[in-house]
This record gives sequence, structure tokens and C-alpha cells, in this order.
Amino acid sequence: MRDLIEARYPSHGIIGEEFGSLRPDAEWVWVLDPIDGTKSFITGKPLFGTLIALLRKGVPALGIIDQCVLRERWLGANGRTTLNGQPVKALGAGRLEEAMMYATTPHMFGPGLEEQRFAALRACVKRPLYGCDCYAYGLVAAGFGADLVVEADLGIYDYCALVPVVNCAGGRMTDWRGRDLTLQSHVFWLLLLGLNLWGEPDSHG
Amino acid sequence: MRDLIEARYPSHGIIGEEFGSLRPDAEWVWVLDPIDGTKSFITGKPLFGTLIALLRKGVPALGIIDQCVLRERWLGANGRTTLNGQPVKALGAGRLEEAMMYATTPHMFGPGLEEQRFAALRACVKRPLYGCDCYAYGLVAAGFGADLVVEADLGIYDYCALVPVVNCAGGRMTDWRGRDLTLQSHVFWLLLLGLNLWGEPDSHG
Repeated sequence: MRDLIEARYPSHGIIGEEFGSLRPDAEWVWVLDPIDGTKSFITGKPLFGTLIALLRKGVPALGIIDQCVLRERWLGANGRTTLNGQPVKALGAGRLEEAMMYATTPHMFGPGLEEQRFAALRACVKRPLYGCDCYAYGLVAAGFGADLVVEADLGIYDYCALVPVVNCAGGRMTDWRGRDLTLQSHVFWLLLLGLNLWGEPDSHG
Repeated sequence: MRDLIEARYPSHGIIGEEFGSLRPDAEWVWVLDPIDGTKSFITGKPLFGTLIALLRKGVPALGIIDQCVLRERWLGANGRTTLNGQPVKALGAGRLEEAMMYATTPHMFGPGLEEQRFAALRACVKRPLYGCDCYAYGLVAAGFGADLVVEADLGIYDYCALVPVVNCAGGRMTDWRGRDLTLQSHVFWLLLLGLNLWGEPDSHG
């Protein structure tokens, strides 16, 4: 991937999880994660994915989730998200009490506030579900029945590609306070859903 | 499935999750679960499966896990487990500290002893992983890198098909005390692995 980008867009920056950074202050920067969901990958669970993001001035503008086993590829850009070329829309439950909520693992939330907020959300939703990695964001973006993803402890490789996939499908992906995500975000907690949680940002924490 | 079995084996019993029981005391009994992992199914996560078991005198003799999206089918019978026709073997970590352990959700363990035992196991293993439904048993049986599944609150539809798939691959699937599983088991806690946990059945609880 790096070679292809460098050949085609020599002025662009590249930030990769595996081979470090190149021109990270460029106007256009690619953020690459060859395998998101490493523990799924090494145990044979086909929900890991390749994540590719393109950011302009630090803001995610294009995102790709590619699941090579299922041969599914989400692409979000220019206000439109597609799954294998077909436009998709996030639906999202109308109320938190009706929401099917994914998290990779309940153990990702740090002690104190994160853990408390997760416990409060878990008590509200219809059902907490686990172990879906980046694929969970694809499920929400495609309106397949998952309404919400909540996670913590994510690096820029983990979230930059997901933002356009989710937001261009009509969902919303932010930090806990409802702020949009950029390359400069300090992200320890993400929400993603079709719900309006942000009208009362502290009502669930 | 029921029609096919009744036409071909009219003396056999059938116990299905969805349409009740027919001759459940017959020598040969089929136990059917059309969709194991309903919450995965309704949210679009392709790790649900169709489970088919054949029991002789209450003991699981043949088991099938079929994942229709991934087009993967495990068949365990007569001391041999195959995945899409190819023989597979459970490998399993040599020590609990090296084990990748799956459970559908940490919330399936009841308060008290179950919860305590799960917490103790979780503290021992290399990594607790979640959300794999019946597919986790297939991963263990195929030696793909998952070593252990621990679950609670399973009905006969949930476990009968898994027993031959796991055991015929060289794994071992029992209740918490290390007893083999039959139609008469009161199963609230299952272990499945290539490890010998049962030498000291209480050392982890």
C-alpha cells in the first residue's frame, strides 16, 4: 500500500501502524492499519479488517474497511458510503433502550469514569454484544441491525478509517462529549449510532 | 430438516428448538437448532450457525456446525472431525497461561460460583475473547489458534452438536467437573480445550 501511495501521490503523508510515519504534517495524509483485530485474526475469527483512511488537514475524508474473508468492502467518502459498491444507510434504534450495542470487549474500559460510563450504557441498552472489532462499524453503517458501538483505548489507526464509513452512511462517530474526531483527537471513548445521545451529553454517564 | 428425517428414519426421535419434540425417548434422537447465535444473526454478524446432532441412547454421536455465510461446515462423527470435508485437529495451548479463551459474553455467568469461576479463569488465560457463538467451537476443533471455550446457561440445542465436533477433533468438551455431556446433563458450565484442566478440577475455581 505504501509503495502505491508514494508512487501516485508523492506529496501525501503516510502514517502506518507497522512501518512508521512519512510526512505526517502534509495536507493529505493516509492512515493505514493492515490488520485491525489482530486477536480475531490469530484465532481464525473472520471479523478483522484492513483499515485505510485519507485525511485532509487532519480530518478524516475517506475511509475503507476491507474484510478479505467475507469479501466485503465498505467505502465512505463525499457523503456516501457503499458496501461492495452498493450504497448503504445506518438505521439506528430510535431509543437507547432498543439499541443493540457492540464493543470489542468489556475489559477495554479503564478503571473509574470509563468503566462507570460503560456500565451505565450497558444497563440502558437492549443488549450488549461483544467481539466484532472493526466489523461492528460496518454493520452499523449498513443498517444490518446493530445500532451502536462503544469503545475505548483506540489509536488513530483504529478509528480514522471508520469515521467516514459511519458518518457518510448517516451515523455519527464522536468522542464521549460528542466532538468530531480528527487526527489530533485524544480518543479514549467513542460512540457511534443513529441515536441522539448528545442532546444531553452527561445523562448517561 | 424434520421432514427429511421423518421420511428417512421414521423410528428416530427429533428434538427441535423451534417445533418441539417427537419420540424423545427413541434410541436415536436428532437435536436441531436452525439458528444458534440469534443475536449475531439479527445484527448481521456471520458467526451464527445451524446445529445438528444425532444422539444414541442420550449420548451425542454425530454433530454438525454449519455456517452458511462463510460456507463452512464442521462434521464430527466416528472419531473424526472434518471442515468442508478436510480432516481437522484441535491443537490447544499446553498451559492455561498460553490459552486464547472464547466466551459468547461475560454476562452469561450467573452470580456466585459461576461468576467467580469465570473471573478466576479469565485471570489465568492469555486473553479472554468474546462474541464467537458456536463458531468458537469450530475454531478450536480446527486448531485455528483458539484454545478454550467456556460458557454457561446452555440448553441441549446449544451443546449436543458441538460435543462430537470437538471430541472427534481431539478436544474435550465436558461440564465443569470434567464429566462427559449427554442429553441428561444439567449443563450450566462447559469447558472445551486441548488442555488437561481436569487433573485438578478445583484448582481454577
